[in-house]
Amino acid sequence: MATIYLDDLEPGMTFELGSITVTREEILEFARRYDPQPIHTDERAASASIYGGLISSGWLTVSLVMRRIVDGFLGRAASLGSPGADEVRWLKPVRPGDTLSCRAEILDVTPSLRRPDRGIARVRYEALNQHGEPVLRITGLQMLARRTGAS
Amino acid sequence: MATIYLDDLEPGMTFELGSITVTREEILEFARRYDPQPIHTDERAASASIYGGLISSGWLTVSLVMRRIVDGFLGRAASLGSPGADEVRWLKPVRPGDTLSCRAEILDVTPSLRRPDRGIARVRYEALNQHGEPVLRITGLQMLARRTGAS
Repeated sequence: MATIYLDDLEPGMTFELGSITVTREEILEFARRYDPQPIHTDERAASASIYGGLISSGWLTVSLVMRRIVDGFLGRAASLGSPGADEVRWLKPVRPGDTLSCRAEILDVTPSLRRPDRGIARVRYEALNQHGEPVLRITGLQMLARRTGAS
Repeated sequence: MATIYLDDLEPGMTFELGSITVTREEILEFARRYDPQPIHTDERAASASIYGGLISSGWLTVSLVMRRIVDGFLGRAASLGSPGADEVRWLKPVRPGDTLSCRAEILDVTPSLRRPDRGIARVRYEALNQHGEPVLRITGLQMLARRTGAS
């Protein structure tokens, strides 16, 4: 089923990942469970904060973008998981009702020296809000199978 | 209510954040919503993968640890949010039933030059599984109010 192998990726390739709208309900639900800071869970406290209102947990923003990454890229790639990310940046607050457009750009591709059947692509993921402002940047490490190593 | 300001932090300070057990139900629920890759959602496919069984989405692991960070550190700190993380590393797979012990260590503390009421602490967050193996490392950037700047 997989169509994108490590060998198919080159620096500068981009993938449009579609968009997602962040709801107040999901901001509150996620934060109550995983990140119960008042700026994410309490309208009144958030209004009095430096953000002037409720904002999404940065990890919810990442998770929402991850869903776009899976649906728009990894779901048709020979993904072998990920060792992590080199950078996560929350560039602007994400607020209820914001719509985030997501894209991926391949930064570099490194075949494994020890394991000829796989390698790592460094991928820059970005999300922009409805005003065109970048709100999230992730430099992710994506392990992928190689075409020559696929049985 | 806040007790920990930027001025109270020094490199080398550590905070024990307690532990959390990862359930199969939560792995599946989170992944179906945010990270629907077969290694996180499909027992059979996961068993046939290089991981040999179902593993947690790395972002669920981060989210579970974030809850420990809030309950054990940020909830009593003068937190002003975060601009991001310099590094996220998933060092070992996290599997259903694993219990993760979490800690934080202050790496460095930098008062803002432009805004004397706040600054950034770089914090190394780590989670170890029940075998003592590190499974997650995050180098987070935490914005905090300064004691002198608090009204």
